[in-house]
Amino acid sequence: MIKRWLVGDPLKTSQAAGQRLSKTLALAIFSSNNISSVAYATEEILLVLVLAGTAALTLSIPISLAILFLVFVLTISYRQIIYEYPEGGGAYAVAKTNLGEFPALIAAGALIISYIVTVAVSVAAGIAALTSAIPSLFVHREALGLVAIIFMIIMNLRGIRESGKFFSIPTYFAIGVLSLLVAVGVIGSLYKLTPVPPAMPIGAPVEGPESLTFFLVLRAFAVGCSAVTGMEVISNGVKTFRYPESKNAATTILWMSVILGSLFIGISWMAYYHGIVPKADETVVSQLAHLTFGTGVLYYAVQIGTMLLLILAANSAFAGFPQLASILARDGFMPHQMTTFGDRLVFSNGIIILGFFAGLLLVIFKGDTHALIPLYAIGVFVSFTLSQSGMVKRWFEKKGSHWRKKFCVNGVGAVTTGIATIIIASTKFTEGAWIVFFLVTILIMMFRGIRSHYKAVAEQISLDRRGNRPPLPRKNVVVIPISGINQAVIRAVDYARSRPGEIRAVYVDLDPEESAKVKIQWAQWGGGINLIALPSPYRSVVGSFLAYIEELLKNEPDIWVTVVIPEILPAHWWQNILHNQRALMLKGALLFKERVILMDVPFHLTR
Amino acid sequence: MIKRWLVGDPLKTSQAAGQRLSKTLALAIFSSNNISSVAYATEEILLVLVLAGTAALTLSIPISLAILFLVFVLTISYRQIIYEYPEGGGAYAVAKTNLGEFPALIAAGALIISYIVTVAVSVAAGIAALTSAIPSLFVHREALGLVAIIFMIIMNLRGIRESGKFFSIPTYFAIGVLSLLVAVGVIGSLYKLTPVPPAMPIGAPVEGPESLTFFLVLRAFAVGCSAVTGMEVISNGVKTFRYPESKNAATTILWMSVILGSLFIGISWMAYYHGIVPKADETVVSQLAHLTFGTGVLYYAVQIGTMLLLILAANSAFAGFPQLASILARDGFMPHQMTTFGDRLVFSNGIIILGFFAGLLLVIFKGDTHALIPLYAIGVFVSFTLSQSGMVKRWFEKKGSHWRKKFCVNGVGAVTTGIATIIIASTKFTEGAWIVFFLVTILIMMFRGIRSHYKAVAEQISLDRRGNRPPLPRKNVVVIPISGINQAVIRAVDYARSRPGEIRAVYVDLDPEESAKVKIQWAQWGGGINLIALPSPYRSVVGSFLAYIEELLKNEPDIWVTVVIPEILPAHWWQNILHNQRALMLKGALLFKERVILMDVPFHLTR
Repeated sequence: MIKRWLVGDPLKTSQAAGQRLSKTLALAIFSSNNISSVAYATEEILLVLVLAGTAALTLSIPISLAILFLVFVLTISYRQIIYEYPEGGGAYAVAKTNLGEFPALIAAGALIISYIVTVAVSVAAGIAALTSAIPSLFVHREALGLVAIIFMIIMNLRGIRESGKFFSIPTYFAIGVLSLLVAVGVIGSLYKLTPVPPAMPIGAPVEGPESLTFFLVLRAFAVGCSAVTGMEVISNGVKTFRYPESKNAATTILWMSVILGSLFIGISWMAYYHGIVPKADETVVSQLAHLTFGTGVLYYAVQIGTMLLLILAANSAFAGFPQLASILARDGFMPHQMTTFGDRLVFSNGIIILGFFAGLLLVIFKGDTHALIPLYAIGVFVSFTLSQSGMVKRWFEKKGSHWRKKFCVNGVGAVTTGIATIIIASTKFTEGAWIVFFLVTILIMMFRGIRSHYKAVAEQISLDRRGNRPPLPRKNVVVIPISGINQAVIRAVDYARSRPGEIRAVYVDLDPEESAKVKIQWAQWGGGINLIALPSPYRSVVGSFLAYIEELLKNEPDIWVTVVIPEILPAHWWQNILHNQRALMLKGALLFKERVILMDVPFHLTR
Repeated sequence: MIKRWLVGDPLKTSQAAGQRLSKTLALAIFSSNNISSVAYATEEILLVLVLAGTAALTLSIPISLAILFLVFVLTISYRQIIYEYPEGGGAYAVAKTNLGEFPALIAAGALIISYIVTVAVSVAAGIAALTSAIPSLFVHREALGLVAIIFMIIMNLRGIRESGKFFSIPTYFAIGVLSLLVAVGVIGSLYKLTPVPPAMPIGAPVEGPESLTFFLVLRAFAVGCSAVTGMEVISNGVKTFRYPESKNAATTILWMSVILGSLFIGISWMAYYHGIVPKADETVVSQLAHLTFGTGVLYYAVQIGTMLLLILAANSAFAGFPQLASILARDGFMPHQMTTFGDRLVFSNGIIILGFFAGLLLVIFKGDTHALIPLYAIGVFVSFTLSQSGMVKRWFEKKGSHWRKKFCVNGVGAVTTGIATIIIASTKFTEGAWIVFFLVTILIMMFRGIRSHYKAVAEQISLDRRGNRPPLPRKNVVVIPISGINQAVIRAVDYARSRPGEIRAVYVDLDPEESAKVKIQWAQWGGGINLIALPSPYRSVVGSFLAYIEELLKNEPDIWVTVVIPEILPAHWWQNILHNQRALMLKGALLFKERVILMDVPFHLTR
């Protein structure tokens, strides 16, 4: 079967432990989203600062250091969260147990939006890199994006281990070449090993269109904060690690932060050292790679690595979203189907839903998802702030060993991410950050609507406490709709006759000649069962029959009606189009009537 | 309901007589296809003749006279057919009763192809006229074409009378302005009332790329034969006329022929008289309208009338195809659904199917259906020849009053249309006429495949001649799949317990903790019914349950299994997405198993 070929053979529940991730694999899966931001974070800072002239670019160093501090704080904070919440869940779980339902749903909504946007933006970025290399593919960018998303869905449905293995090669390649760039660049510059080419003469400072205000510096910080997005992913996926889960996850987040921090500060320092000015047609990383490696193989390795890393950022979302959705579904805030653990021990429905909505975004924005980037950072920072605040409250109430130290760490985390959230929201509000507030509101309404539906269902189907069984209607009337007399009908009649109850066969009279024939045959074959001929002025067999059933239910309020449908089933499925779809229409219409029990008596054709 | 708004309230069977068509309405519906050909028939003849130079254009007069003769012969022939076959059916019915099944199916296949092509070509021609007036709509031509087809489907589903009334206004408008053009043009020229403008000086004859061979003349005749297409439509729709059907239909075909003949010969004569040479950027009719009416309102009236007529030609096919399809279905050659007489006393499925395939053609050919025109003429002429030949055989065998005269008329018809068919096929073979032979072969195979399927079904479900009832399996086992214990389950259990037979409840064990709870609850509520817990190493509830049923059927070859499904039905249909689709998947999978009876016990939620 095609599904088996795409997704692989099903795995047993007992194989779950074998699907757990080693630290190396987990780092590849969870870090791509986070580390990929080094490809653009420094550039985003410089792009804001340059508005105040090239002289302002030197401010990139203190801003980068501030962001590095944020990385440091978040790392320690999230390590504490990982140990406290080995079940995973990140911001939602932390906010729910410590701050209450409403903040938890805000965190969940914000995270869901950023996961979906991550996939759309990463895929669009990857496709943009491809189409700038091969311009003839540009007209197909939407289709290519959808193919990439479908590929990611399939790889992730194959199981987290398998997708991790597959995607770890490009991830480590990218980390490798970027580390080489930073190492060669920084060491070479410090020891003057590489000649600084004269391409960047530090001439007279160029004036910018804006003046260097404090607000501009804040804006630069806000855009630079995109560097820390993705730090939360590991905390959502603790359960996917091998035993001891928390310890391994904590180690992995430390590795990830060290890599992120050194690459980010290294690139920012190099840009400062070489006096890089952001250009419209070349990225900062590309400029640095040119300066460090010239135009050789290594330059292209950096470019390809960056592109791969940007695409793979989507994969972190495929690891995080299904976990979050399943936790929400367990709490009744998402459809139960999200908890279905698929063939390959992943939450298949979550993977498919994430891919679907990311694809929808890609199609709506026609492959140009740059406008979505603000949505993404704000969602992440809202969840950061809520999870840190939740931990602050937790330590204060729970106390425990070293609680004051932990309280301080998460407190500093809450305050810094809170400030960052306010800065991002206020500087980016008109650029689209308001959409996040709007969407989160919609999502919270949806979460609550779903839960109230499930609650209403649970109440309605719950058993009587005193142990009373709900009474069944007094009497059962069996109705057999027939359109002629044949073996299938006889089989249904005989089956119905083998049980107690009043039986009626019902025939819709379309043609007097045909009706007379049916009546004669019924006398021979009907087994004494009453045959009722229904008039049908509008020639609708299904309509006349439904009207009869409705009449019956109305006139006798305490009966059940069991409709026995003699169904002829062709030997091959495609032969179905040659048969009237009346049985199907009848079943569809009767399913939603109360006190009607449907019964299919099949007659299988063999050719 | 939206359907009622689009299509109108249902009509009673007893209202059928009131839906019959007057001659005026019938002429509008059935003639548009036929008369619309005057818009291009003369031009097609001239386009072939001009290949041999402008001097050859004078041959258009004898060729047009030959075609006029064809119109004359076909009119008398079809009037005879209409009186002989008041039930309608045209070529298929005539060929079937006189020539046998195979020729009849050839006629049916050829007619079906030409109906579908008529719709696609007419709509494409109309849209082309529109987009040449408003070029910005060109990129939307496929969508516009589909909208036009959907509009025609809806209008025709409203009933033949209503669509006839609606479309008769533009049809009569078009016939009116074209008649005015011919009358003013011919009378004016003969009596020199209108000045012949000097636009057309008869200069030295221009040489053409080909020489004037007999084959070229035949080609000109072949393309001119497109003028008579559509003559068969009335013979297919005799039953839609008011009483006396045959007489009214015969009168209508006479009117149609008179209009067609005079317009066609008039236009040909005017083109000859004015020495019109076909141009790439202006149609012959447009040139004649310019010469006759200048550039005033009447000129535009002719242009708009021609365009409307071309689009409305599609409507004749919507009147003819459903009739033919229903006759084929009654004989078992098409799916039975084609005989369904819809709400508005039309064969709704035929209308929809025709629209669907015409839309498909339009999309496949991207709105440029010019290549399809040869397909269309050949289909029509094949059916002409077969129906005339059938009548020849009929008169010879049946004799009757004046049979020799009738024999001769149809004989001349058979010979002339036969020759025309051969000419069209041989001159157009490489241009696409071969596709018709290919498609007709496919259709015949389909017709026969459908009939043999229906025959096989009829044999399999037919009753035993000796009156023996087919034996029922000996024993009935009732299986209730449950996923927990709630009111819906209890109701299903109680319903099952109210009838005799062995009952088992089956539960798929996914989680040991949950299972233990279910077992305890079952002890209280299960009513003594055995609860079987199924292991599910791959976590597939539906899969495990199906495996259990299959095992049961295999181990006990003489039992029935009645699967009682406790089904929770939400109060609103959209709430269905919040519930596991297990019941639906289960029903889908079990429907195709032999000896399994499905039973839905519904539990309706109220909120």
